[in-house]
Formats: sequence, structure tokens, C-alpha cells
Amino acid sequence: MAMVKLVEYEDASPEVKAVYDDIMATRNTKWINNIWKALASHPPTLARIWSQVKEVMGPGGRLDPLTKELIYVAVSMTNNCEYCIRSHSAAARKKGMDDEILGELVAIVSLANQTNRLAIGYQVEVDDFFMRQPE
Amino acid sequence: MAMVKLVEYEDASPEVKAVYDDIMATRNTKWINNIWKALASHPPTLARIWSQVKEVMGPGGRLDPLTKELIYVAVSMTNNCEYCIRSHSAAARKKGMDDEILGELVAIVSLANQTNRLAIGYQVEVDDFFMRQPE
Amino acid sequence: MAMVKLVEYEDASPEVKAVYDDIMATRNTKWINNIWKALASHPPTLARIWSQVKEVMGPGGRLDPLTKELIYVAVSMTNNCEYCIRSHSAAARKKGMDDEILGELVAIVSLANQTNRLAIGYQVEVDDFFMRQPE
Amino acid sequence: MAMVKLVEYEDASPEVKAVYDDIMATRNTKWINNIWKALASHPPTLARIWSQVKEVMGPGGRLDPLTKELIYVAVSMTNNCEYCIRSHSAAARKKGMDDEILGELVAIVSLANQTNRLAIGYQVEVDDFFMRQPE
Amino acid sequence: MAMVKLVEYEDASPEVKAVYDDIMATRNTKWINNIWKALASHPPTLARIWSQVKEVMGPGGRLDPLTKELIYVAVSMTNNCEYCIRSHSAAARKKGMDDEILGELVAIVSLANQTNRLAIGYQVEVDDFFMRQPE
Amino acid sequence: MAMVKLVEYEDASPEVKAVYDDIMATRNTKWINNIWKALASHPPTLARIWSQVKEVMGPGGRLDPLTKELIYVAVSMTNNCEYCIRSHSAAARKKGMDDEILGELVAIVSLANQTNRLAIGYQVEVDDFFMRQPE
Repeated sequence: MAMVKLVEYEDASPEVKAVYDDIMATRNTKWINNIWKALASHPPTLARIWSQVKEVMGPGGRLDPLTKELIYVAVSMTNNCEYCIRSHSAAARKKGMDDEILGELVAIVSLANQTNRLAIGYQVEVDDFFMRQPE
Repeated sequence: MAMVKLVEYEDASPEVKAVYDDIMATRNTKWINNIWKALASHPPTLARIWSQVKEVMGPGGRLDPLTKELIYVAVSMTNNCEYCIRSHSAAARKKGMDDEILGELVAIVSLANQTNRLAIGYQVEVDDFFMRQPE
Repeated sequence: MAMVKLVEYEDASPEVKAVYDDIMATRNTKWINNIWKALASHPPTLARIWSQVKEVMGPGGRLDPLTKELIYVAVSMTNNCEYCIRSHSAAARKKGMDDEILGELVAIVSLANQTNRLAIGYQVEVDDFFMRQPE
Repeated sequence: MAMVKLVEYEDASPEVKAVYDDIMATRNTKWINNIWKALASHPPTLARIWSQVKEVMGPGGRLDPLTKELIYVAVSMTNNCEYCIRSHSAAARKKGMDDEILGELVAIVSLANQTNRLAIGYQVEVDDFFMRQPE
Repeated sequence: MAMVKLVEYEDASPEVKAVYDDIMATRNTKWINNIWKALASHPPTLARIWSQVKEVMGPGGRLDPLTKELIYVAVSMTNNCEYCIRSHSAAARKKGMDDEILGELVAIVSLANQTNRLAIGYQVEVDDFFMRQPE
Repeated sequence: MAMVKLVEYEDASPEVKAVYDDIMATRNTKWINNIWKALASHPPTLARIWSQVKEVMGPGGRLDPLTKELIYVAVSMTNNCEYCIRSHSAAARKKGMDDEILGELVAIVSLANQTNRLAIGYQVEVDDFFMRQPE
């Protein structure tokens, strides 16, 4: 059970309803998932976070939609956020992820978590070559 | 300064030299970066880690080489590993990353770190829909 | 189910009972929550942790009791510790936290988690100005 | 050295200059610190992050400005972000933090990091009492 | 429910069966636990991870088997990985861990998590003495 | 440079001097390292932390002194605390750690960080067998 009462559409203020409507229109769905209903307990946060997610994860930019979701899931796995792993894996599957791509993703995420601790564990100095800024 | 003496090629045992040679051949370079020289202080770890990196980050599979590096960097940014951020960003730049793609990457990584704590902070329950396994 | 058998008051050694009694007296309650019953499986840890919590989170000092709890919850959200989020949010609510304050807290915690990765992701150097120690 | 070229005011696009001007006006200063100059390498991120920081950390709301900064610093210490620790500690000092308050802050942050692992280490179940939602 | 269908022995490919057989032979058991059944959804990862675990956690080397498991559990507690805490605590108990040793382990893990944030929170510089490499 | 002025012995209050004296007597040394000088900016924290470190890391108990230091370093590597990695590695070397043991330690720490994300990434359910409490 969440730390706050989830706000259902029919109980929402006009301000919250407007965000819910935009989420559903943008995603072409009639469904609002729980994270938004929890954020609605603090309407300015709901509006701020939705506008960010819409801008960063929406179409446009150089990275394709599946790559964006994979990066998102990679961070969520590293941070151990079940909600985010499951909701964005679902989004990634819609955009083409299957068990094999998930397997490659998990392999890279877990390898990076391993090698991060090798570099940190041995306190390896960054090679000069890697410190040069691209022109 | 690293926690162990870095092992230079000329001081390396045949076992370590073989790994160094494979790294240079695989990457088509004459240069060994510091992480491998630190791992060489414990030869079985050097061999094990290199064989993994070669398999997971090498060509082949469903994800393209740039996407693999971006996922790797995303994890390293979340874990705050400077060595890994800098070395794999250099690798990503070789494979096509520029400041704009880096900007999109950092935007997603930081957003995911934010929303991870929103879901955790409110202890939001995973929607049943997200728990269904794909067939 | 915890990793150890929870120690109930009636089964506790005199040493453990003394800590339980002090917890209940300090908090003016007749109830011991699970974390203490788990720590009681290793009595010196129980005594050491309780004495710290009593000193650090108790009244006195410059920070008021609600602020102390908010800082505690902020850390627990960042670390994804459900037990600590829920138990110290309950404590914070007793000291005045409502959904609006929780909303502000979660907003700051999640923003800091985001901007932490922006600074780390870009490996931004600390401005000289911020390195000066206050006199 | 940052991963991107820092964008100085005189080299900035009008879009970036507008954000810089708003930062300086809001903070009543003539100075832009490095994080913004790095974010300016990706202008939409600069604009998006500044608007969030302005809204969340600015005046207004139920938490006072010093408390907001202390929560921010608590998260940054937990995540080991030197840039964020130093820049927001400087902000906190401007709003009244001295060595004694910093001492209390560090005491709580480090205690919470300790007890988080006690609850996780023993896998302590959340007491029913803490799961009840406030009415 | 896991993110992928667990692969049971009778449904496994010969490649996966070979790994399962080696796990059971190495551990002298007739049982495969869930993590391997999940990794089997991506056979190269299953093979790679098992070969690592067998090499690193198996007998041989300077550290005794119980110490290896305690170090493993310490990391898993710090990262909040329930699966790893529970499975490797079970392994540690088989090798001699009892509640008292677990108590000492948890005490050290939680203390290190605390003092890590003291050193980071105050941004304490490493003493020159600690930077000297052993000869 | 630390966030606070380091307190040297000759400038210390009697309360702080007493702790410094106990540190030097316990460790049979004439030297105080930086972390204690930083904690001395908040004397109650200095006293509280020292008494814990003395109790938890000191002789006695079931785990031997080297094992205790290895566990401490494992946590510090996972959390990326340079001060703690370097100071406790120095302590571990005094108690018998050499490059080979360090190699085994780093191998286990990095492997656990990897497999933690495999279990989390796939959201693997804990086997019933691992949930049973030892009698």
C-alpha cells in the first residue's frame, strides 16, 4: 500500500484531471498507472514530473524510443526500483524488446556494476587519454 | 595512485601478456589502459574479466555497439565511477556519440534516478498490468 | 520473515529487557517494533544502536524533531529501505508531517537524486568558490 | 575537467543566455556556477533542470529554505556527489547552517545509512502498525 | 513473479542442461535455485555467470569458504538485494555462520555504511600515509 | 580540503583530547588520522563514532581481525568511499592482507555487485527453501 491515498480520476481536481487527460492522450490509452495517482497527492509534483517525462522520453531527439527505455531500465535495475523496472520493461517490450534483448541488457547492466567496483576497488587512475575533451 | 602496482607489458608474466595481446588485437590498438594493468596484479581476475568484457561488449547480438556503450555509461553514472564514465564515454564517442547524444543520455539517466525515488519514496505498488509476463 | 527469530519481551534476557524498557520509557509507549526485536538476536548491537538512535534522534540540539525525521526519511528513500521509510514517516507524521510536507520532501529527494547524476554524469569540477572553507 | 566544454555567458546562444539571466536575477548574483555551464551543452536540459530547481528549491511551500537545503545535502552525501555536497552546503551556510548544524546533519545522515542496512541486513518485516495509511 | 519464464530442467536445451548438471554436480545437490532458471532465458549469460561463480566462490585461493560468503553477503546487504542476501546467507550458514556471526557481520556492514557517509559528508582528504603503496 | 577545519591535538578541547588519547592508546600509535580530526568539529559525534568503531572493529568476537577489515573494505568499495577504502585497506594489510588476498576480495566484491543486479534485473523470486529460518 502506497504512503498516500491514490487519486482516482473521478476524485481528482481539475488541475490533476488535466494532467491525467494529457497522459492518456499522449499515450493513446484510457488508463492511468499508479505512480501518477500517487504523485497526484502533491499536484505541483505531478505536473512537473509528467512534463519532464513527456519531454525526455517522448519521440524526437537522436536516440530512438527503444534505446531510451533500455537506458531507463538499466538505471532502475542498478537502483533496485521494482516499480520502474517493471513499468519501463513493459514500455520497452511494446517498443520491441524481447527476452533476448532483455538478456543482453541485463548482461551489460550487471557487467558494468561489476567493473565499476573493480575500478573503484583498485582506485585506478583515469588514463590521460580519457581526460582529453573532444574538439 | 592505484591500490596496487600497475603491471606494464614488459614486466608481465606470459599469462598476463597473452591477455594484453588479445586486448590489443581485439581493439586494434597498441595501447593498454590502466584498469587492465591493475587487474593484472591478480591474473585470474584479469583473464576472467577480459573474457567477459570481450563477450558482452563485443560485436554480435541484437544491440548495436553504440547502444551497448550508452547502457554501460548509464550504469557508471548512476554508480559514480569516474574511471568507467570516462573510459566508456570515450568508447561511445568512437562509435558515434556526440554532445547532443550525451545530453540525451544524461537527461534520461538523471530522470530515471529522479523517478526511481518518487516510486520508492511513495512506496507505489506495481500495477497488476505490469506484473503479467509476456507470452 | 526476518533472517533471525524476533525476540519477544517475555523471552528476552535481562540485558535485552533493559533496552526494551528504555525504548518504551523514552517513547512513552508500550510497544516495541520489529527492528529492535531483530537486533536483540545480537544483544551488543541492540544496545549500541539504541543508544545512538536515542542520542542522535532524541530532543536537544539545533535541529527540531520534525526536521531530523525528514532528513532520516530522505536518506532512507535514497537507499530504498522500506522498513526505514515507513517507520520514520510514521514518526514524522506524529511530529507534524502531512501529505503536503511529504510531497515537498519527496520532490526535493527526487530532484537531488536527479541533479546528483547530472553533476556526476558531466563530471563537473567544483567551482573554486565552493571549496573555500567558512571562517 | 568536465566531459563537455563549459559554455561561458559571452559564447552562449540567446536561449542559454535567457536561462543564465534568470538564474542570476533569481539568486541576485552576477555569477553562474559550473553545473549550469555544463548543462548548457544541451540547452533543453539546462532549461528543464533550472525550471525545476527554481520551483522546488525556491521560496514558498511548507518547508523553510534551510530545511530544504539540508535535505538536499543529505541525499548528496548518501550518493557521494562532491559537487552537490559542496555547492548546496555553501547554500545552506548562507541560510544559517554552521558547523554545529552540519554536525547534526552528518550524524543523522550517517545513522540512517547505518540503520538502513540493519533493517535490510536482517530483512525485518514492516510492522502492521506502520503500514496503515493516515486518514 | 520473475521478468522471464523460469526454465525448468525438463524444458531446457542441451546447452542449458549442461550448465544445470555442472551446478548440481559441483554443489552435490539435485536442486537448481531460481536465479539460474531465470538466467537460462539467455543461455550465454547463464554459462558465463556460472563459470564465474564457480571460479570465484569455489574452493581454493587464500580466503576460506565462509569468509567468501560473508563478503558476498556484506555487499548484498549494502545493495539491498533480497535474493542474494537470503541465498548466500543460507550458503554461509552451511559453512558455519550462526546468529552470533551474522550479528557481527551486520554490525560491521552497518558501521561501514555509517562511517562511509561521515568521510564523504565531511569530504575528508585521504592522509598521505594511506596513499603510499606497499612495496 | 574538508568541509570543516580539522582539529589538531594541540587545539583540541579536553573532551576531544580524551578521545584522541584513547584512539592512540588503543592503536598503540602516536598518530591521529584525518577522519577523527574532522569529526572533532562536532565532539558528541566524535565520541559516539569512536566508541562504536572500538567496540565493533576491536578484538574479540567470533570473526578474526583480518576478516573484519575485509568486510569493511567490501562495503566501502561498493559505496565508492575512497577514504574508507584506503584507510581500511591499510589496516587490512597490517593484519595480513597482500595483493593476492586483495585480488580475491575485489573479485568477490565485484562479482556480488554483478549478480545482485542479475537477481534484481530479472526480479527473481526467493526460493521457498531460502526463506526458512534456521532453528
